[in-house]
Amino acid sequence: MSEFDIIADIFSPLAKDAPGAFDLKDDAALVDEGALVITKDVMIAGVHFLPKDPLDLVARKLIRVNLSDLAAKGAKPIGYFLGCAWPANIKREKIELFAAGLKDDQEAFRISLYGGDTTLHSVKAAPLTLSATFFGTPPRRGVTRRSGASTGDDLYVSGTIGDAGLGLKALTKEEKFTTVDKASLAGRYHLPDPRLSLGAALAGLATAAIDVSDGLIADAGHLAKASGLRAEIDAVTIPRSAAAASWIAAQSHRWRALAALASSGDDYEIVFSAPPAMRRSVTVAAKASRTEVSRIGTLTRGEGAVLLDEKGEEVAVPSGGGFDHFKR
Amino acid sequence: MSEFDIIADIFSPLAKDAPGAFDLKDDAALVDEGALVITKDVMIAGVHFLPKDPLDLVARKLIRVNLSDLAAKGAKPIGYFLGCAWPANIKREKIELFAAGLKDDQEAFRISLYGGDTTLHSVKAAPLTLSATFFGTPPRRGVTRRSGASTGDDLYVSGTIGDAGLGLKALTKEEKFTTVDKASLAGRYHLPDPRLSLGAALAGLATAAIDVSDGLIADAGHLAKASGLRAEIDAVTIPRSAAAASWIAAQSHRWRALAALASSGDDYEIVFSAPPAMRRSVTVAAKASRTEVSRIGTLTRGEGAVLLDEKGEEVAVPSGGGFDHFKR
Repeated sequence: MSEFDIIADIFSPLAKDAPGAFDLKDDAALVDEGALVITKDVMIAGVHFLPKDPLDLVARKLIRVNLSDLAAKGAKPIGYFLGCAWPANIKREKIELFAAGLKDDQEAFRISLYGGDTTLHSVKAAPLTLSATFFGTPPRRGVTRRSGASTGDDLYVSGTIGDAGLGLKALTKEEKFTTVDKASLAGRYHLPDPRLSLGAALAGLATAAIDVSDGLIADAGHLAKASGLRAEIDAVTIPRSAAAASWIAAQSHRWRALAALASSGDDYEIVFSAPPAMRRSVTVAAKASRTEVSRIGTLTRGEGAVLLDEKGEEVAVPSGGGFDHFKR
Repeated sequence: MSEFDIIADIFSPLAKDAPGAFDLKDDAALVDEGALVITKDVMIAGVHFLPKDPLDLVARKLIRVNLSDLAAKGAKPIGYFLGCAWPANIKREKIELFAAGLKDDQEAFRISLYGGDTTLHSVKAAPLTLSATFFGTPPRRGVTRRSGASTGDDLYVSGTIGDAGLGLKALTKEEKFTTVDKASLAGRYHLPDPRLSLGAALAGLATAAIDVSDGLIADAGHLAKASGLRAEIDAVTIPRSAAAASWIAAQSHRWRALAALASSGDDYEIVFSAPPAMRRSVTVAAKASRTEVSRIGTLTRGEGAVLLDEKGEEVAVPSGGGFDHFKR
């Protein structure tokens, strides 16, 4: 059972009469005749964040992962609705800390809370379960869809890849890092940086876009699938931070290390496509939004997403190249 | 720690810059310059429904409790976003059953799924946790708020009160009922009937409205509080079904029984206020929407919500007259 099969087979028939729902194949939907873009994400302690993560950081991550969906569509956020199912023994101070995190990021991103529901679990072991529904306005040139890429389009990604995954390994002590690297990687895991300016600048320029939440290869694959194409990613071009570069240098198998970075989740970068003729425009958009953008591959005929080594041969990728809730 | 204090003290400051959020004091919010009404409810197995409830009924209840919020505001539903955190060992057949329930009620209420997120719990004992964000269009005469009642307004409620609470007692075998009564009461617990037609007919006529989810007294109290008034409910006028009437007849203490009905949750009726001069219009609206409506009391100066016996003396009410997640 795969998360994507469940959505495609079981839930997407329920959206067939809503054109703005895009058959549930996109990061967000259009409602009110396209006047609003809406997205919804669920976050569970122990799945999407560590049970011991400070709740102000959890709140900010909840905001940011949702903003990342809006960013990929080029939308400008306005506000959100919040659903909380608190652990049975939650203390008021913890809820206040959570709200303080919300407040910080509401100010940072100029958004407001509009409503929601706050409830308490009755089962003792039940984890904090959060849900947020964010809305915003689409860019004037229309939202960037997942499905608009053409054969021969370049594939790009913002920022650096794999840091959040390494941050998680650092926080769970699965791997060791220097103090400086650990802090920067853990920061990427706790506080993603939604690429709102870049997403807005790419509206009408990118042919397709998606935010990287499951893993670069997996999400490039979602973009490719929605566009009826194949994504070929040149492993050496994958942008990595200094901390990730040190980690790779210490690994015995370089390609396997790159594949691991490109398969780890929580990057919240934007992967997008644009025709080769638009390379200068992409550079301009990246500069205007002060966001690093790297060209990492091509969209071709075929299906799936593959990682290629410098000889153009396929690199083996763990577990489908990303996270799937229903495959563990 | 009370659910309502948490919302008022901790969360409502986060909504101060959003006029459509009504300080989180209403069932729904207005977004997009009032073009859309949005509401969000969370439902947890073991809290809002029984862990063994068939998942098609759970899906339909999720839809209906949200529609009930829209109904109280007079809004016309369009669609929804769905968040699911499934138990770790969920079977595909169960998800399919859940989707079948969604499909039935989507057709019944002419709404569509627009998006969402489906995830899996990692903790074994974690219960199914659902969240839905519903949106619709406001009535032309504007949404009915919680806060518009005036001194001297009549207080009304739709349908019958306390059936869902008795249904829960029947399902958990806390009380015994005849087979016929049990079926009808359990039906009220499993499948509330959102009063969409009545809510629409009351737009511009009711001065204030709220749906009864926590309990009649508690929710009348929320309406009164938002309006800066006191709700006085005449216990004998509380509308009850034949099954509830049999149950009351079998109780040793009649007033206590009435207080229990008026304090039990999950009715999903609409309680609303209107000036005495509008009694005929209320009757017309009730008839037009084919919904029973009963006049049950008055709004007066003061605060709180009280249940009065036939001598006008206050009847003792259990646990604040309704359900509070954070007081157990």
